[in-house]
Amino acid sequence: MRGFTEDEFRQRLENAQFLMREQGMNLLLLNSEAEVRYFSGFHTLFWQSPTRPWFLLIPAYGEPIAVIPAIGEALMRNTWIKDIRCWSSPQPHDEGISLLNKTLQEMVGTRAVIGLTKGHESVVRMPLQDLERLQSQLPGIHWVNCTPLIRKLRMVKSAAEISKIRHICNIASKTFSQALELFHIGQPLDEVFRAFRIAMLQNGADDVPYLVGGAGQGGYGDVISPPSDKPIETGDILMLDTGATYDGYYCDFDRNYSFDHASDAAKQTYKTLYKATEAGLAAARPGATCSELYQAMQSVIEAAGGGAGGVGRMGHGLGMQLTEWPSHMASDHTVIKPNMVLTLEPSMAISPGKIMVHEENILIHEDGVELLSHRAEPELPCIT
Amino acid sequence: MRGFTEDEFRQRLENAQFLMREQGMNLLLLNSEAEVRYFSGFHTLFWQSPTRPWFLLIPAYGEPIAVIPAIGEALMRNTWIKDIRCWSSPQPHDEGISLLNKTLQEMVGTRAVIGLTKGHESVVRMPLQDLERLQSQLPGIHWVNCTPLIRKLRMVKSAAEISKIRHICNIASKTFSQALELFHIGQPLDEVFRAFRIAMLQNGADDVPYLVGGAGQGGYGDVISPPSDKPIETGDILMLDTGATYDGYYCDFDRNYSFDHASDAAKQTYKTLYKATEAGLAAARPGATCSELYQAMQSVIEAAGGGAGGVGRMGHGLGMQLTEWPSHMASDHTVIKPNMVLTLEPSMAISPGKIMVHEENILIHEDGVELLSHRAEPELPCIT
Repeated sequence: MRGFTEDEFRQRLENAQFLMREQGMNLLLLNSEAEVRYFSGFHTLFWQSPTRPWFLLIPAYGEPIAVIPAIGEALMRNTWIKDIRCWSSPQPHDEGISLLNKTLQEMVGTRAVIGLTKGHESVVRMPLQDLERLQSQLPGIHWVNCTPLIRKLRMVKSAAEISKIRHICNIASKTFSQALELFHIGQPLDEVFRAFRIAMLQNGADDVPYLVGGAGQGGYGDVISPPSDKPIETGDILMLDTGATYDGYYCDFDRNYSFDHASDAAKQTYKTLYKATEAGLAAARPGATCSELYQAMQSVIEAAGGGAGGVGRMGHGLGMQLTEWPSHMASDHTVIKPNMVLTLEPSMAISPGKIMVHEENILIHEDGVELLSHRAEPELPCIT
Repeated sequence: MRGFTEDEFRQRLENAQFLMREQGMNLLLLNSEAEVRYFSGFHTLFWQSPTRPWFLLIPAYGEPIAVIPAIGEALMRNTWIKDIRCWSSPQPHDEGISLLNKTLQEMVGTRAVIGLTKGHESVVRMPLQDLERLQSQLPGIHWVNCTPLIRKLRMVKSAAEISKIRHICNIASKTFSQALELFHIGQPLDEVFRAFRIAMLQNGADDVPYLVGGAGQGGYGDVISPPSDKPIETGDILMLDTGATYDGYYCDFDRNYSFDHASDAAKQTYKTLYKATEAGLAAARPGATCSELYQAMQSVIEAAGGGAGGVGRMGHGLGMQLTEWPSHMASDHTVIKPNMVLTLEPSMAISPGKIMVHEENILIHEDGVELLSHRAEPELPCIT
């Protein structure tokens, strides 16, 4: 169940090359973790060291070439990539740039169109001065944005990708179902986080790279905090939002709990968000747009008189990264397709300074939607 | 023990502003996780979502201004930063760029020198096309590389930073000392990783974002792999290398174990690397250079007839990131100073395709060196 077949990588390459030729690109120069992994299968936590850049070069015809630091050679040799060129790194005065330049010229000459991921949700995973140097050394290259091309490929998942996401969603659902054993009044919030992480690992997660949340009287004030050491009190509402991984693929959903009791406002907000998610589930069909999906959830919240939670959208794509395109918001008219994996994430204010967020993970089928997370309780669960 | 005092942030700001004025910079435009956190205290795992950029603006005189997505406002209000400006994000057609442009002009006008982290070990944590658009909107701005300035500040740690690193090093040392209980012959490698992660959390780590290693007969082939599900066998050598965190600060060291028995070559390599680390410990003094530190370790390895392990350096800085400047290698002439936290990481080949790596974490004092990791055993430990 780990990894992918070579056929799958060849299919990804073929799909990319079809679009590259259609769009007149001679080569893609990829340098970020998700893109390099998507096309090569190169999978390592070593990207957390910012010291060394990594490059994967995808030509419009032919096979990819990896241009990478020597420390990664053995691991890259375990992938389907055959042509691997290495430099001894670190080497700040020439961190792979000469080798990259030489390889690019060998592949496409000095006049060509090269795609770089420059668009929304992208980063430049190399020193900017090195990229500028490369560009000045190659004045005949026209650099274009290939984010839309990559986005189009990565938004629709393969069966193998889906099975990994389904697996980690099951693990997180199982862990949340153990909430009564894991969480209790008097437990410091950092111990709540610790207990959840340990249970996730015991249940089979490879890692829990993302775990945020909040707890407070009648609600929480933000949704991206690390934990304090403040103990959970009677009347608190706790939210935990986890992005855990299995074989490099994420789940991303949250759950809310009250302790001993909750205000009517909190209970009502929970019900409204549950209903908003139901509306999202009903609207999530091939052919619908993200904007329509947003509107379906937002209209339930508006009908209940709810204000915005400040999150800025009501869900997003999910897969190799915690969040991926598209976004469920009024301005995103992406058409939903089968095999997209998405989150539904409506949020609203409970009271001034207190918000609540719900989140589920879904898979789009030809004829409807499948919940990958086990559906949250219809009423705010209470831990006593 | 969590967080920092406002005095500490003011000191960091003052140190930066002194260097900015010396170097003729009017403002630093910071957009990556470590830099934003270093100056503001803004600490969240939410950076794992690539959707939204975050900006911290440090003027040469006066107070910093944060320009951030609204979803982060509540958390940023808990820091010492007073001036916080938000946009509703995601907003792909204008992902904070108008607000950033307006704020920059308000702070420094349209003719100024602005520092961007463009140098070695930096990334651009925003879409390149957005940065290019900002730059084209501000033709009177001279953009310069501020990586050397940031590097100089971050390489020397404060007492509060050191106490966090010491704490996580103690937790990792304690966990490695439980190896006999945690690891055994027949255990699949992914279960080895899982057991280690759980023990780290139980011992007090906040998170284990980095855990790599390898296991194989007579040695391992690379040092950055995720685990397979292959069971540990008699005669395997296992290496685990962990970057765990406490309050946003890392340890980074490894340990090696044999199972039942080891070849003379592996035992001898271990001893050589232990001796090389001893030489590194003896050489690590204020006033020495990284190049000298490298040479001290390398000469032990060469005297033993050892070949290079392909890692490319023999240690590095450590702190808010798993790896930071400087690098212990022949070409890095950085002068070692008190309160630098460094790794010593000699590596060498055991046999063709098999390498071994040792690693310790150290703190430089005025009059010598302190081990932050508990020193590895002088002989290759054996688990039976």
